[in-house]
Amino acid sequence: MSDRKTGKGATTMAKTEFVIKPGVQEITLIREFDAPRNLVFKVMMDPNTIPKWWGPRAYWTKVDKMDARSGGSWRFIHGDNKGNEYGFHGVYHLVEPNRVIQTFEFEGVPGRPSLETMTLEDIGGRTRMVTHSVFLSLEDRDGVVQSGMQTGAEETHDRLAELVAERLKDRH
Amino acid sequence: MSDRKTGKGATTMAKTEFVIKPGVQEITLIREFDAPRNLVFKVMMDPNTIPKWWGPRAYWTKVDKMDARSGGSWRFIHGDNKGNEYGFHGVYHLVEPNRVIQTFEFEGVPGRPSLETMTLEDIGGRTRMVTHSVFLSLEDRDGVVQSGMQTGAEETHDRLAELVAERLKDRH
Repeated sequence: MSDRKTGKGATTMAKTEFVIKPGVQEITLIREFDAPRNLVFKVMMDPNTIPKWWGPRAYWTKVDKMDARSGGSWRFIHGDNKGNEYGFHGVYHLVEPNRVIQTFEFEGVPGRPSLETMTLEDIGGRTRMVTHSVFLSLEDRDGVVQSGMQTGAEETHDRLAELVAERLKDRH
Repeated sequence: MSDRKTGKGATTMAKTEFVIKPGVQEITLIREFDAPRNLVFKVMMDPNTIPKWWGPRAYWTKVDKMDARSGGSWRFIHGDNKGNEYGFHGVYHLVEPNRVIQTFEFEGVPGRPSLETMTLEDIGGRTRMVTHSVFLSLEDRDGVVQSGMQTGAEETHDRLAELVAERLKDRH
């Protein structure tokens, strides 16, 4: 928690907090954004903005499908400049304002999805995003942690924070 | 395991085995059927047969929606003769022959789905069904166990076994 902002008006980028407990097949990510949650939600759920923030900076991202409603499906592809491509897909169990419950499968490990609940909480005009993932097994969870998920997630959140900050500036 | 059949040609109904480990947010159900898995799968995935086996005998069951393909949705309602109705719904992450991965939500506890993987294994012409559910938390898992899920699941499996046996007889 040491690198998260506590004061108002701080300009440094807040970082992502990871909750990864031994023996529990879950990962929880917590990140705060300097913007109202309706804006964060709007940016996150717009297929046109996904390529601008989803995934690490070193990869391009393409939206193959994003039908962001309860019962819809999504599929994103990202890749590097060496021709490697990685697919991810899932279904939306629930999409409502500021909350999404979806499955998440990395196609490199087929048939082993996780179930992800993303919630945006209003914290006095700012936003706390909590992303909770539960895995089919502890081994699956540990595999994701060992794959370097944390670096990728933090970079993704940094990119989202930058994009949200731009949109907020455009509003003023 | 004591009440499961081991010999060939046994005629008593095999029972459901439950794997519920302390501290692990999962439930695994194992049940064997005296029929080939393509028949078991066909019966399970047919919306017209759902009312004949899904849920305990004391309830009627209605299929509100069952689009049984990867990316489709389902919703079933069951009720008693006193006017009580209970809804269940989810999305199909994966539907392929003899394997289904789906979300499962009891609408009485909204926003707390589980992720369920159902697999039919061929065991020498008979079928072993393994249903693995992972929950958002250990508390959710324990709540489902305390709700009497085991009695309901066993009765559901008994009804499915009876239905499959009927269909098998019709084939001969």
